[in-house]
Amino acid sequence: MFYLLDIIGTMAFAMSGALTAMNKKLDPFGVFIIAFVTAVGGGTLRDIMIGRTPVGWMLDLNYVYLITAGFFLAVIFRKKLDRLRTSLFLFDTIGLGVFTLIGLEKGINIGLDPVICIALGTMTACFGGVIRDILCNDIPVIFRREIYATICIIGGVLFFGLRELNLNQDVLYLITSLVMIVLRLMAVKFKWYLPALEKK
Amino acid sequence: MFYLLDIIGTMAFAMSGALTAMNKKLDPFGVFIIAFVTAVGGGTLRDIMIGRTPVGWMLDLNYVYLITAGFFLAVIFRKKLDRLRTSLFLFDTIGLGVFTLIGLEKGINIGLDPVICIALGTMTACFGGVIRDILCNDIPVIFRREIYATICIIGGVLFFGLRELNLNQDVLYLITSLVMIVLRLMAVKFKWYLPALEKK
Amino acid sequence: MFYLLDIIGTMAFAMSGALTAMNKKLDPFGVFIIAFVTAVGGGTLRDIMIGRTPVGWMLDLNYVYLITAGFFLAVIFRKKLDRLRTSLFLFDTIGLGVFTLIGLEKGINIGLDPVICIALGTMTACFGGVIRDILCNDIPVIFRREIYATICIIGGVLFFGLRELNLNQDVLYLITSLVMIVLRLMAVKFKWYLPALEKK
Repeated sequence: MFYLLDIIGTMAFAMSGALTAMNKKLDPFGVFIIAFVTAVGGGTLRDIMIGRTPVGWMLDLNYVYLITAGFFLAVIFRKKLDRLRTSLFLFDTIGLGVFTLIGLEKGINIGLDPVICIALGTMTACFGGVIRDILCNDIPVIFRREIYATICIIGGVLFFGLRELNLNQDVLYLITSLVMIVLRLMAVKFKWYLPALEKK
Repeated sequence: MFYLLDIIGTMAFAMSGALTAMNKKLDPFGVFIIAFVTAVGGGTLRDIMIGRTPVGWMLDLNYVYLITAGFFLAVIFRKKLDRLRTSLFLFDTIGLGVFTLIGLEKGINIGLDPVICIALGTMTACFGGVIRDILCNDIPVIFRREIYATICIIGGVLFFGLRELNLNQDVLYLITSLVMIVLRLMAVKFKWYLPALEKK
Repeated sequence: MFYLLDIIGTMAFAMSGALTAMNKKLDPFGVFIIAFVTAVGGGTLRDIMIGRTPVGWMLDLNYVYLITAGFFLAVIFRKKLDRLRTSLFLFDTIGLGVFTLIGLEKGINIGLDPVICIALGTMTACFGGVIRDILCNDIPVIFRREIYATICIIGGVLFFGLRELNLNQDVLYLITSLVMIVLRLMAVKFKWYLPALEKK
């Protein structure tokens, strides 16, 4: 079940990267690379920083195949993707929840402090998109408008809070990811956003 | 004493990052991340390249707390920071000296050549700011105007020169960092800068 | 022989980086750093991702000397480089072939899947230029116009295909790099390019 959600999230992130790249009129190689880094960039950065090398996607070819599939789907249906925006957004939100949990777990596995684990979860879920935006020469969108990283942080705090209750791990994962998914849906529906910090 | 200077430098770098991000009208999460990477980005890059993982700030929560404090100070006093510019510049200059020494030391510890150690010192002091500028979609300021990295290189060369004299380590650190700090103050006071390399 | 080609490729990449940086009117330090990352950035990224640290150039000072030489050559002859464009392009193309092979080899050495090895070869040859363009605040040129990465991928596939034939390693390296070099020369001569993926 968790693995299925990882698949959905990876493909959704790859497709979101491909879309951004096509909007920038990149060539197919550029679109593929942007799809790739959007999907695995956050996890790669996390793996590098904690010394888990070769990084994850090099040891599990399924990520390469999933991203390639996501790339082709995005390219083939590029003229119809606007109509599928709602589905894509839902998949992307699933990715947000799942990737945060994966990052948290990697940090716990090597005994890092909860604060650092939450940073790793947020990095896993958010920094693929940050690298995508840098490669496309934009200021990262999650630094400007969207409540996105904040939800990862809330999810991480909730995770460690619930963990004290000795819940079954599956229940813990389910509750945390559902709360994150619902929060994101509400954030978009009710247009919650963080105000810019103006100096004047 | 050295540790105290590290604290001052880390907070100064975090505040300089927060200021740059607020000038770009980022949201609070974006401002925090830019503050974070400005403060620890150079050291993180260095740790990754020499294989010292998990990277430094993941093993010492004090950095997270210091950066968080620097972030809040910068946000709260954001309308008054222009008047504090001189103090901030002084702290930033202390950071420049201390971070260079920390980078040199890490390289020496694992037996790298002095040339590479100087590169690591410069990276530690300068690349937080480089990553800050990239995330804010600017060409890094140290590539364009400021004599900044040049001072790190001079400090590194001086360090290895003095080291031949078998000075006490504290004296060695003190002299090197003082020379760097004085050079930077003079560079700004007398408007020293490197000319652009024009092609025509 | 192979080592000689590595030298030519490294210097050519450093000079191409220095040229890009001078076109952006950077100061000498900025030009040097851009020359440096263009030459070793791809290999550094590869080494970090596969956990081969300290990264390559830190253990072999020859890279530092070669890049420094390339930097000075580019600076001294900066007004005449336009007339040398053809030679530079040829050297750069040699670098493309050699660096791809080096990347492939590193992946094979640690037993990674051929697909991942091809990714490592492409990364080694192409990502120095990607980092150069990001530091210069451009969308990477290989994502937009040039058939460049595609040639690395073709070279990688050819390499693993020929490898099945149990060719002598030198012959294998020679054929693969020659095919890549000829393909690039033809791509530029006949103006082959990948079309942008337009959404409308």
